[in-house]
Amino acid sequence: MTVRFAVLGAGRIGKVHARAVSGNSAAKLVAVADAMAPAAEALAAEYGCEVRAIEAIEAASDIDAVVICTPTDTHSDLIERFVKAGKAVFCEKPVDLSVARVKECLKVVEAEKGRLMVGFNRRFDPHFGAVRKAIDDGSLGEVEMVTIVSRDPGAPPISYIERSGGIFRDMTIHDFDMARFLLGEEPVAVTAHAAVLTDKAIGEAGDYDSVNVMLETASGKQCVISNSRRATYGYDQRVEVLGSKGMAAAENQREVSIEVATGAGFTRPPLLDFFMNRYPAAYSAEIAAFIDAIGSGAPMSPSGEDGLLALALADAALKSVKEGRKVQVSEITG
Amino acid sequence: MTVRFAVLGAGRIGKVHARAVSGNSAAKLVAVADAMAPAAEALAAEYGCEVRAIEAIEAASDIDAVVICTPTDTHSDLIERFVKAGKAVFCEKPVDLSVARVKECLKVVEAEKGRLMVGFNRRFDPHFGAVRKAIDDGSLGEVEMVTIVSRDPGAPPISYIERSGGIFRDMTIHDFDMARFLLGEEPVAVTAHAAVLTDKAIGEAGDYDSVNVMLETASGKQCVISNSRRATYGYDQRVEVLGSKGMAAAENQREVSIEVATGAGFTRPPLLDFFMNRYPAAYSAEIAAFIDAIGSGAPMSPSGEDGLLALALADAALKSVKEGRKVQVSEITG
Amino acid sequence: MTVRFAVLGAGRIGKVHARAVSGNSAAKLVAVADAMAPAAEALAAEYGCEVRAIEAIEAASDIDAVVICTPTDTHSDLIERFVKAGKAVFCEKPVDLSVARVKECLKVVEAEKGRLMVGFNRRFDPHFGAVRKAIDDGSLGEVEMVTIVSRDPGAPPISYIERSGGIFRDMTIHDFDMARFLLGEEPVAVTAHAAVLTDKAIGEAGDYDSVNVMLETASGKQCVISNSRRATYGYDQRVEVLGSKGMAAAENQREVSIEVATGAGFTRPPLLDFFMNRYPAAYSAEIAAFIDAIGSGAPMSPSGEDGLLALALADAALKSVKEGRKVQVSEITG
Amino acid sequence: MTVRFAVLGAGRIGKVHARAVSGNSAAKLVAVADAMAPAAEALAAEYGCEVRAIEAIEAASDIDAVVICTPTDTHSDLIERFVKAGKAVFCEKPVDLSVARVKECLKVVEAEKGRLMVGFNRRFDPHFGAVRKAIDDGSLGEVEMVTIVSRDPGAPPISYIERSGGIFRDMTIHDFDMARFLLGEEPVAVTAHAAVLTDKAIGEAGDYDSVNVMLETASGKQCVISNSRRATYGYDQRVEVLGSKGMAAAENQREVSIEVATGAGFTRPPLLDFFMNRYPAAYSAEIAAFIDAIGSGAPMSPSGEDGLLALALADAALKSVKEGRKVQVSEITG
Repeated sequence: MTVRFAVLGAGRIGKVHARAVSGNSAAKLVAVADAMAPAAEALAAEYGCEVRAIEAIEAASDIDAVVICTPTDTHSDLIERFVKAGKAVFCEKPVDLSVARVKECLKVVEAEKGRLMVGFNRRFDPHFGAVRKAIDDGSLGEVEMVTIVSRDPGAPPISYIERSGGIFRDMTIHDFDMARFLLGEEPVAVTAHAAVLTDKAIGEAGDYDSVNVMLETASGKQCVISNSRRATYGYDQRVEVLGSKGMAAAENQREVSIEVATGAGFTRPPLLDFFMNRYPAAYSAEIAAFIDAIGSGAPMSPSGEDGLLALALADAALKSVKEGRKVQVSEITG
Repeated sequence: MTVRFAVLGAGRIGKVHARAVSGNSAAKLVAVADAMAPAAEALAAEYGCEVRAIEAIEAASDIDAVVICTPTDTHSDLIERFVKAGKAVFCEKPVDLSVARVKECLKVVEAEKGRLMVGFNRRFDPHFGAVRKAIDDGSLGEVEMVTIVSRDPGAPPISYIERSGGIFRDMTIHDFDMARFLLGEEPVAVTAHAAVLTDKAIGEAGDYDSVNVMLETASGKQCVISNSRRATYGYDQRVEVLGSKGMAAAENQREVSIEVATGAGFTRPPLLDFFMNRYPAAYSAEIAAFIDAIGSGAPMSPSGEDGLLALALADAALKSVKEGRKVQVSEITG
Repeated sequence: MTVRFAVLGAGRIGKVHARAVSGNSAAKLVAVADAMAPAAEALAAEYGCEVRAIEAIEAASDIDAVVICTPTDTHSDLIERFVKAGKAVFCEKPVDLSVARVKECLKVVEAEKGRLMVGFNRRFDPHFGAVRKAIDDGSLGEVEMVTIVSRDPGAPPISYIERSGGIFRDMTIHDFDMARFLLGEEPVAVTAHAAVLTDKAIGEAGDYDSVNVMLETASGKQCVISNSRRATYGYDQRVEVLGSKGMAAAENQREVSIEVATGAGFTRPPLLDFFMNRYPAAYSAEIAAFIDAIGSGAPMSPSGEDGLLALALADAALKSVKEGRKVQVSEITG
Repeated sequence: MTVRFAVLGAGRIGKVHARAVSGNSAAKLVAVADAMAPAAEALAAEYGCEVRAIEAIEAASDIDAVVICTPTDTHSDLIERFVKAGKAVFCEKPVDLSVARVKECLKVVEAEKGRLMVGFNRRFDPHFGAVRKAIDDGSLGEVEMVTIVSRDPGAPPISYIERSGGIFRDMTIHDFDMARFLLGEEPVAVTAHAAVLTDKAIGEAGDYDSVNVMLETASGKQCVISNSRRATYGYDQRVEVLGSKGMAAAENQREVSIEVATGAGFTRPPLLDFFMNRYPAAYSAEIAAFIDAIGSGAPMSPSGEDGLLALALADAALKSVKEGRKVQVSEITG
């Protein structure tokens, strides 16, 4: 069976998914849509597919699944429309910046018995996957502490930051999902510190660029997340899990693994410097998992609920910063 | 000039310092004291020095400096006695478990114009020292975030834990001092999470075994400390500093640097598994710095004040756990 | 311009090249040929191309280039036929097992002004390429010593070994080419040791499984190559260059970069264990370079001459083993 | 029992051994001798021992053992004198630069039932020792191939080189001994390449600065040794053993284990740059082994025979370079 796809949104992340869909032998990219005609046309030309309007895709009988890569504020509406249209829906994170709106949207999905997968690509990274495997096979014993360091090479434009919902909902949200993926137990309380250290303009836009978060589960398992919007040495993406029997850690990735030694020392190249070259395997595996779940009818994972819970942790972290206290996740999820 | 020493306390840490003093060509170990005569005699025999009573050492004209390695609850009294006796005093951390008592003690030291150095050995570790050097020489730019992972191979006996003042004052205190050493700015607020994950008996003794702490300075610099009382793979001691220009990290230490590769993978040995074999160079350098400061008259570092501030951070962390909120250090130091 | 390809030979390496051609947006895989019809059909089905006979491909007007992946003893004949047919030819190493036959074949190529590229894929590996770049940009100063370790996870079947021309012509030949790629000067003398250590059957087939080779250029630059047909820990592929100013080394590659630490030590996974998963990027870049050279008319590299010289080094190494002496390359090339 | 020592020769290596002897609690450094009175006096002052003439040490009843650190051409004479005087003798490598003279000397030692240990310090390096342990405990299976890279940070003065016996007898000799230590079987044939690449003056002095050597045992086990007199990045000392079950490798050593990451990459410091700071633990363990053997009466190891065999391999390597052929060790040892 070949799953016939439309990609909604032909921006940066739309391109990433168009590539992943095209490279999957069980998928066919049929159409792309974008409010900006030239963007849609360029992407369609690159992959030899059609440009169609959203409405046409909704009504199309030759499209089984959509990948939503449009601006965040359109996500929940599009999810609702496309589950109602009977399409399988893959939506980039986040479902929405409002927990209430996400809940509403997920109710629609449920009522329609819709199929929804949310795009937390890092779960599909082979390195992080191998850490999870070390947990699952018992090598680490009981998980006790998860440590996540996630630093971007540089901040996005201020215009992006202003619409992003803030660092916790835009950047840390990936780490919240990774924490849930690795802890094996739901976080119940969150404490966070946040500061503006790399660029004052980020602070003027009402956001932070340097944050640390601690999570805690009901049984006391701990997680620490450390984020910065700037790392001169590349895209720093590390996870580490301490368990009763041992520890597993995923190392950073480089384009080439060489070392040059001189009187100044032994130097390895900087890290890969962008999510698009750091995570191509993850994006491919993510789409493959979506296709598999469509085929098998198995539950989609990460689910809409996963999207909701990561967002709730982001809201809790922000509340913790604002109020200077530990915040229960239940305060957010109600 | 040779500095003539007495070591007070012939237990584990007393032995460490006796070895460091004996190995220093500018020092002479003249006497040891211990309430347990056999312990004192064994140590004296090993280094060819005398056993003397505390009072005799206080009065001795052939002793210039003392190293206080007795139980914590005797530290502040002994500091006061020996500065009054005109000896240079090196005291193992902590000065006392009570901030109030430490303040009182430091007033006595000041009034006597006494010379006091507090034993935060890790400042003298060559690896951590090299990280500090990378800060000082500007390689990292402005310091933004310090990350400290410190995990013991295993917990001390419950009897020790009961008298330890708790994990923050006993174990994390080293990391609080390291944070201050690396941040280059005083932490003003502390938030902490704490749990009992490795051994219920530790919880029954009123303590924790797994803690995470976030610190923040007035200008917003961040620090995260992560502790566990158990690491099956050895004594895990890492520091990492992120700055505006780059990052520096100190790696863990092993007894031997080999790798064995088989079908099961590439395996390096576990880490050194004890503070006594992880930090011998640090203990030697620490005593050397004490001797240098005695000779030069320069300020002792780490000072009594450093001891006080690390203890205040420990108290703040504990208060944060108890009250579920961010605690200002000024709430502790008054 | 799209270059239209036929792949001759649908075996293991034929598949590798079919994948590389198909994945290149400037290429189109038109046909495959194989004496074994089912193999050709399977490959054609996988990539949606035709099965054709060699003769049909030779005569086809819709094919610009061929990739020769047939058994070694057909390589030189096919090269001659296809350059005469006006096709650009990419031939897997070696051109032939006989230096004399290679020379004859290259004369035909030259007479026909044919375009021939020989498949030494490792030159296109990004890691080895980065080492070469460190030479070219002057970071290492004058090259003095090249060290190549190349160990297969396991030996090929004895039936393969019997037709392979022996380890020097089958396996070390890649390292001879790499040595030439990195030395920047032609080797003039060769000395080798060889033994049978992993499997007696290899010796009974008249071959060796464990060899070491030293090369030397006219100006005295040195190279050491170390090969084994068995490495339990994976496909061990390292190069290292020592120069007057420094050293560059390419590290081995793994599927995932994680480390698991327990009381038994810190373990990273074994290496990638097959040339097909170790070198996919190299095979893609190699075909891309072939396509570029077709388009630009620039000299093909590695050339037929490169194929000849690597083979000559292999012959010289074998002669050195047989005669227990240093062999001049000129003794082979005449 | 305390072994009472004299150190003969107060130069660089004499100081190394004086320190090792002084730091051993089972030893007492009683006297030093040196033709240069100021050197002897300085060393005696540093360790609080006497200066004595060689003859006085020979006759002394308060000296049990001597460490010979005088110029090479005096070694064999001194060994003979001191075994005749009934002292246990530790002699720095080499026993002599002439195989014939070494044989003669060892006959005297045997006739006198003398105790002689030869100084191949690297056998006592904990990292190399751990590799040997991985062989001994069966982790690697049958040893097949040993790879030794040994590069000095820089060449010694030409005046030293002129009296050194050449790079094979002066530098590679350590690697020959290491090869024997790791192969577990005696090398029977040697082939070598040699060049002058780092400094023409070395060639004018009749020596080489860049050499590679291949060794082979009776059963076909292989070893490769690669030497250079220059490595800008420090003292490069690596050994690697490939066996039927796996591989073990010892990594290089640094003063501090930190990494600094910037936009230019991840940089670790250069290696330790001198044998005196790279091998202090080895020198201490070596003297401890000597003392142990004196006490227990067990055979000394490395023995005079070990010194002879390493020298024979050096002579064979030189002969191989001169004659451009594989040389049987029996051609040298007769």
